[in-house]
Amino acid sequence: MPNITLTLNNGKQMPLVGHGLWKIPNEKTADHVYDAIKAGYRLFDGACDYGNEVEAGQGVARAIKDGLVKREELFIVSKLWNTFHEKERVEEACLKSLTDWGLDYLDLYIMHFPIGLKYVSPAIRYPPGWYNDGVTPTDIQTSNATIRETWEAMENLVDIGLVQSLGISNFNVSVILDLLRYARIRPATLQIEHHPYLVQKPLVDFAKKEGITVTAYSSFGPTGYVEMDLDHAVQAPHLFQHPVIIEIAKAHGKTAPQVLLRWSTQQDIAVVPKSDTLPMLLENLDAKGFDLTEEEIKKISGLNLNLRFNDPLMYFGCLPIFN
Amino acid sequence: MPNITLTLNNGKQMPLVGHGLWKIPNEKTADHVYDAIKAGYRLFDGACDYGNEVEAGQGVARAIKDGLVKREELFIVSKLWNTFHEKERVEEACLKSLTDWGLDYLDLYIMHFPIGLKYVSPAIRYPPGWYNDGVTPTDIQTSNATIRETWEAMENLVDIGLVQSLGISNFNVSVILDLLRYARIRPATLQIEHHPYLVQKPLVDFAKKEGITVTAYSSFGPTGYVEMDLDHAVQAPHLFQHPVIIEIAKAHGKTAPQVLLRWSTQQDIAVVPKSDTLPMLLENLDAKGFDLTEEEIKKISGLNLNLRFNDPLMYFGCLPIFN
Repeated sequence: MPNITLTLNNGKQMPLVGHGLWKIPNEKTADHVYDAIKAGYRLFDGACDYGNEVEAGQGVARAIKDGLVKREELFIVSKLWNTFHEKERVEEACLKSLTDWGLDYLDLYIMHFPIGLKYVSPAIRYPPGWYNDGVTPTDIQTSNATIRETWEAMENLVDIGLVQSLGISNFNVSVILDLLRYARIRPATLQIEHHPYLVQKPLVDFAKKEGITVTAYSSFGPTGYVEMDLDHAVQAPHLFQHPVIIEIAKAHGKTAPQVLLRWSTQQDIAVVPKSDTLPMLLENLDAKGFDLTEEEIKKISGLNLNLRFNDPLMYFGCLPIFN
Repeated sequence: MPNITLTLNNGKQMPLVGHGLWKIPNEKTADHVYDAIKAGYRLFDGACDYGNEVEAGQGVARAIKDGLVKREELFIVSKLWNTFHEKERVEEACLKSLTDWGLDYLDLYIMHFPIGLKYVSPAIRYPPGWYNDGVTPTDIQTSNATIRETWEAMENLVDIGLVQSLGISNFNVSVILDLLRYARIRPATLQIEHHPYLVQKPLVDFAKKEGITVTAYSSFGPTGYVEMDLDHAVQAPHLFQHPVIIEIAKAHGKTAPQVLLRWSTQQDIAVVPKSDTLPMLLENLDAKGFDLTEEEIKKISGLNLNLRFNDPLMYFGCLPIFN
C-alpha cells in the first residue's frame, strides 16, 4: 500500500495519514497499533498525556518482531507534556516517552501546549495531567519556564539524536512569530484542532508560508468530544450526518469520515484520526484515494463556525490561550 | 472636575477616561490637546505611529505655560513602533517620542504590536509605518528581534527614568503568558480593541487576574473604521444607532457614545476615545457620571460578534496575529 508523505522543512518525510492514540484505552492499545501497522499505517501520533505509550510501544515491538515493518519505516510522534517545560526536565520527559515506547529515537517530538505547568515527578504521577494534585480541577499551577527555554531544550534533543524533528501544537500566530525569531531548529510541524467547524485559514496559511507542515487533530469535529460530555459538542450538528458532507460523500462513493479527512489532506494538511475498529482503520487510511473538486473543498470550508472543542478555558475556566 | 483613576500594578494612578490621538490631523492636534486639557482630560494616548506627537506636545506645552495643568498632573502615553523592536533601537525610539512631545519622561510606554518589523531610520521616514519602503502595501519585512529582547530594552527605559510604566497592545493570552515568565517589570496595562462587537471576555478576565489593567481602543466599534473604507466596518450596524444602545441611553438620559464608554469603564476598563469637537470632548469625559445596571451591561456584552477591525491580516493579507 503506497504511503503518501509530506516533505518537512528539514527534508524528512512524514506520512499524510497517521493514526491518533488519544483516548485509546490502555488494554486495547497494543493490539490496535499492531492491527493498524498491518493495515498499512506508519505514523502513530502519541503523547505522554495520552497515557498509553507503553502499550503503543508493545504493539510496535510485536509488529517489528513479526516482520510487518521495520523501525525506520515507522514515524513515531510523541509530545512533551506541560509539566516538563523547564529546561532540566525536557530530556527526562523525552527519555521517559522513549523508554515507554521501547525506542531509541522519536521521529517527531511536539511541544503539546504553549503552557508550562509546575513539575510533577513521574514517581508521583504519570502522566501528570493538568491538575497539580492530580485531582482538583482548579489546582492548576503554571511554571516559570519560557517557551524559548523549553524550545532550546527540545533543540538539544535533536542534537543528541533522541529526536529527528520538532513540532508545536496549539500555538497561534503571535507565539509562532516570536518562536521563529529565536529557533535554531525551526518547527517542522504545527498540530492544531482542525475540522469544518474550525477552519483557521489564516493560521494554516501562515504556517505553510513559514514552511511549517500542518497536522489536523479532531478532524471529525465534535465527534470525539461528545463522549467527553462537552455541551457544545453534544449540541453541534454531527459532521458525519451533515447534509453537505453526506452529499459530497455520495457523489464520490465514499464515507463521510473519508470526505472529512480528504478535505484536509488535499490541502496538504496531515491527519491523525483515531479508529475504533478494523473497518474504520482501513476506511480512514483509504481517505486519500480520491479527489474533491475545488468547489467541494470550498463548500466544506464554508461550514466554518470558529467552533473549538479542545480548549483549556472550557475545561478549567483558565488559561484561555486561544484568546 | 474629578479625574477618576485606576491603580496600576506598580502603584501609579492612570485616568479611567483619556483622549486618543489616533487619526487626529496634525494641523488640529495642538489646539485639540489644549482644549481637551481645558475640558479636564489628563491622559493622552499617543504613539509614534500616529504621527502627531510634535503637535500634541505643543498643545501640552501651551496648557502648562498657561497654567491649566502641571506636567505631573498629566498622564502621557506613547507607543514603541514595530520598526524599533531591536534592543539598540528601543531607547532611540523612546527619545524621539520624548523629544517630539517635549517631555523628559512618559507615564506609559506601550509595545504597539507583538510584531517586529525591519528598522527604518527616522532620517529616512518618520513615522515609519508598516511598509518597508513606505509605499508598497506588500513590502512588509519582519525583524529578528524577539519580544523578550524588546521588552528587556523597554524595562531599561524604566530603569533610566525615561518611562514610568510599561504596557503592551494587541497581545493575546499565549504571548502574555510567555512574557510574564521573563518580565522583570510586569506590563501595567494591556491595550486592546474592545467594543460591544468584540468583547473578548476571556482575554480581559485573564489580564485582570494577572493584575494587568485593560485599556479599550476603538470603543465605538466600526465608527472609526468607516472613514478608512473598511468593508465590514461600513456594513456593520453603527453602534450609535443600535437599538440596544439607544434604549439604554434613553433610560439614563445619556448619549449612545456615553453608554458605550460607561459599559467599559464600569468594568474597570479604561477608555481613550477620540473626540472631533468640543461638545464631544465634554460628552466623552462625562461618560463616568452614571451607572448601568448589571443587566444592561450584560445586554450590551450580548452584542458580541467577535468582529475585529484593527487587524494587520485585513490590511495587508499577512501577520494574522489574532489567529
